Amino acid sequence: MDEAFDTDMDLPAHLTPPLAKGHLSVARLARYWYVVCTARDLGKRPIAITLLGTPLVVFRSAGGGVAALLDRCPHRNVPLSLGSVDKRTGVLACAYHGWRFGPDGRCVEVPGLIGEPSKAWQVPAYPAKEQDGLVWVYGSPDAPPATEPFSVSGGLGSGSTSVIREVEAESTLHAAIENALDVPHTAFLHKGLFRGGKKNRITALVSRYPDRVEIEYQGEPRPPGVVGKILSPSGGIVEHWDRFFLPSIAQVEYRLGSENHFLVTSMCTPVSDTHTKLFAVVTFRTRLPARWLKYVIEPFAQRIFRQDAEILAQQTRTIRRFGGEQFVSSELDLMGPHVWRLLKQAEQGSLPTEAQPVLKKVEFLA
Amino acid sequence: MDEAFDTDMDLPAHLTPPLAKGHLSVARLARYWYVVCTARDLGKRPIAITLLGTPLVVFRSAGGGVAALLDRCPHRNVPLSLGSVDKRTGVLACAYHGWRFGPDGRCVEVPGLIGEPSKAWQVPAYPAKEQDGLVWVYGSPDAPPATEPFSVSGGLGSGSTSVIREVEAESTLHAAIENALDVPHTAFLHKGLFRGGKKNRITALVSRYPDRVEIEYQGEPRPPGVVGKILSPSGGIVEHWDRFFLPSIAQVEYRLGSENHFLVTSMCTPVSDTHTKLFAVVTFRTRLPARWLKYVIEPFAQRIFRQDAEILAQQTRTIRRFGGEQFVSSELDLMGPHVWRLLKQAEQGSLPTEAQPVLKKVEFLA
Amino acid sequence: MDEAFDTDMDLPAHLTPPLAKGHLSVARLARYWYVVCTARDLGKRPIAITLLGTPLVVFRSAGGGVAALLDRCPHRNVPLSLGSVDKRTGVLACAYHGWRFGPDGRCVEVPGLIGEPSKAWQVPAYPAKEQDGLVWVYGSPDAPPATEPFSVSGGLGSGSTSVIREVEAESTLHAAIENALDVPHTAFLHKGLFRGGKKNRITALVSRYPDRVEIEYQGEPRPPGVVGKILSPSGGIVEHWDRFFLPSIAQVEYRLGSENHFLVTSMCTPVSDTHTKLFAVVTFRTRLPARWLKYVIEPFAQRIFRQDAEILAQQTRTIRRFGGEQFVSSELDLMGPHVWRLLKQAEQGSLPTEAQPVLKKVEFLA
Repeated sequence: MDEAFDTDMDLPAHLTPPLAKGHLSVARLARYWYVVCTARDLGKRPIAITLLGTPLVVFRSAGGGVAALLDRCPHRNVPLSLGSVDKRTGVLACAYHGWRFGPDGRCVEVPGLIGEPSKAWQVPAYPAKEQDGLVWVYGSPDAPPATEPFSVSGGLGSGSTSVIREVEAESTLHAAIENALDVPHTAFLHKGLFRGGKKNRITALVSRYPDRVEIEYQGEPRPPGVVGKILSPSGGIVEHWDRFFLPSIAQVEYRLGSENHFLVTSMCTPVSDTHTKLFAVVTFRTRLPARWLKYVIEPFAQRIFRQDAEILAQQTRTIRRFGGEQFVSSELDLMGPHVWRLLKQAEQGSLPTEAQPVLKKVEFLA
Repeated sequence: MDEAFDTDMDLPAHLTPPLAKGHLSVARLARYWYVVCTARDLGKRPIAITLLGTPLVVFRSAGGGVAALLDRCPHRNVPLSLGSVDKRTGVLACAYHGWRFGPDGRCVEVPGLIGEPSKAWQVPAYPAKEQDGLVWVYGSPDAPPATEPFSVSGGLGSGSTSVIREVEAESTLHAAIENALDVPHTAFLHKGLFRGGKKNRITALVSRYPDRVEIEYQGEPRPPGVVGKILSPSGGIVEHWDRFFLPSIAQVEYRLGSENHFLVTSMCTPVSDTHTKLFAVVTFRTRLPARWLKYVIEPFAQRIFRQDAEILAQQTRTIRRFGGEQFVSSELDLMGPHVWRLLKQAEQGSLPTEAQPVLKKVEFLA
Repeated sequence: MDEAFDTDMDLPAHLTPPLAKGHLSVARLARYWYVVCTARDLGKRPIAITLLGTPLVVFRSAGGGVAALLDRCPHRNVPLSLGSVDKRTGVLACAYHGWRFGPDGRCVEVPGLIGEPSKAWQVPAYPAKEQDGLVWVYGSPDAPPATEPFSVSGGLGSGSTSVIREVEAESTLHAAIENALDVPHTAFLHKGLFRGGKKNRITALVSRYPDRVEIEYQGEPRPPGVVGKILSPSGGIVEHWDRFFLPSIAQVEYRLGSENHFLVTSMCTPVSDTHTKLFAVVTFRTRLPARWLKYVIEPFAQRIFRQDAEILAQQTRTIRRFGGEQFVSSELDLMGPHVWRLLKQAEQGSLPTEAQPVLKKVEFLA
């Protein structure tokens, strides 16, 4: 109740510096698939998740298949995720009165009722599938999917290892993707961790396709920081690509000499307009034994992500305080504006159809 | 300030499953009496309570009578409940500047002022009275009450015992009353505690009067759960009535054989639209010594109420997330729709006047 | 998200006692100087402050001068206060991508960029200066100040001591100033601490000038409480003035006999509409050794302020619950209405120009 009366934001014109125009870089792409949890994390109990601001319950129905329903019992609006799944029939029972629903959202039983449940007692069902060790849910209910989930399969050849990691950020989907694919911030926010030191002239080749953006970086030296020394003591050429795929995939690929190859594919899930979850499939092949990574790369990656999550949360908080975004960009913002363009085109159904990429070349120091 | 900018609820049409229409089952019946505290809990210090969303201060004035005023000093809007009551005169003094008010809300003294207080310095006063060990306040200020408090007096004959218990729920008044008088949920939410096991065909006889609803249940067996075994080892017929009285009384009466008789009368108080407090007068006569109840019935009742309070809070939270209620009902929802009908009729001043009840008979399995 | 759906405040007319009209005594005077921190508290690191609801970053630029910018990097809207100041150049670097800004808000470097930063990448700058051991910021950016900071200099002659103390209140600027300059509440809220006991007839002489209000109190006896006994065992005449200076200065001056002289000048800063910070310069000369004050006056003053801060927070909370202020005033409210009149006139640019004060004489008991 106390929140309802707040004049703080209501500043008269003479007080306002150029503030914001209420804009927030949110595109809501409902007709795409998103990862909601790992396959391992979905056991016998239903899970409550939120996708695009909508509460859903995800559960394993008969035969182990995955199902996703709106997380609200149509009877008295209790979350279905408080309920339980019958082992034999795979139906989901509400915890309050025991109303039972199939994976298609139909009410199959009302305990105590003499007679059949009404067909109107239906829960909206969202297409769901298990793929690549992840549970994917389609953002729009009760309609056949118009797209396929992004395929993460395929490794980096023999000797490569894959792990799945989850992280979260209090930020828009767009801000999280821009952060994941942004080079210039690494020298500042993550100073000393990987970039920094003597500057080199780098060439970025940007290619924007109707459904993705790719940037190839040329001229990067071996990182002078801690990581570079460990991975490639003898130096070697760096090859580096950053990629975005609609609706929400951020991919970073690094090669360092012949011995090291990293591919990080982050499936980003818009939990709400300002909360994003990242499911990262990290595949790598290095001169180090795989188990070393547990002690070297993992803490390093976690520290980087904590710094990113903190700055993203501060960015979101500041945007809220000012009532919206007010960004300017330099030509070093190579990925963000292209990603935003594709997101808006996809939301509006106006993606271009020609296969030829739009090309751009930018030079900078790093 | 951070809360002011939230686009999460503002989903475009293509995202929305059939969501809610902003409806919330709230009827605000101001011209009735409600319990605000037990008589024992109102001592020498004023108490801050909230009734129908309005902050009130309740205190004992001269001679021990109870008084209720709007909890806001007209001078500088400090809560009067921070103040103190003069033992001799029974007037309530504000903690900030010491302005003093009688039980009728009139300002009787402004310390330091030479001359009389203005008659305009008046606090709205709410009719208040002590009855049956409870403090009742009328929901509308400065007008003679149009109704009387519900009478809880009268026990169950010799050997019966009465206790008063308070519980709270984050729910609308209507949802709390429906929960208190709902039979089907007990087999699920409270599984193992009292209902469950073999199903019987039960007949419910519903009678709706202009000011109350009564349901008589026929055919209930002795409960197979723990409670039944303790209370009536030799079996016996169950008699069971659930009753609602305007504006907010939920009553459950059970007889089990000749030895056991329970009457639970819950005076429900709408603290705010989504917060309800229940003052339950529990009267009983059983084959068990009364002190056994402390160790057997009380923990059992508390566990049941914790489960109810939790599910009601989750229901309210889900309704909020979806922007309103979206209920469907089966014919097993025997009490809730009738209660809602009376609440709305009472709010709109359109209660029927004929004394003949509307009757309905429903069969179900329990 | 849960906050968005709240019908509690939406009471229908038949429920409402005379509630509030949404008024809140907030005047936003942007074309004045306010204290944002002590000079001692502003070191090498930038500080985040809020002035008139606007987030600012305050820092020491080259040569030790103070600077204040809008606390939002124009690039990706991260708070600049998370960044750091270059010791040599005095420029402020954003923590995210390292964009650098001078004390005038101009972007002087974008790391990695080949070429010059755009002149459009500008942060609004607020005039700032250090004076009397305090850091002052002007409430309006990018314009030459129309006023000067209030001068606190000048002591009480030889043997006087000055200290600076900071306190905060969850209240409007107006409510904090009224509280600081209000006499009648002291006998109630601070009962036993200084006023109380036998009542005397006091004469208050109120003078309102175009930019200030002064009240002289005549007839006050030596305080009967603890403080009076310590300070002036032999009695003595009390001289007492309360003063308000636009935009936000509350001053209390006391003389007690020839030995004791107190001058408390509180520079009040409107952090937001309902949060006020007070920077009090306390200057005094007493018969006690200055170090005694640490053990006698300081705990006493802190206790008084805690009581004031608590009652102000409760006042603000109550005003919020009722949707606005609903005040009445007696003739003992000597200062508040005059202060409000000047604040509103200053906000509207309609301050009177004649130098002759408006005079009023009020008698009361204290």
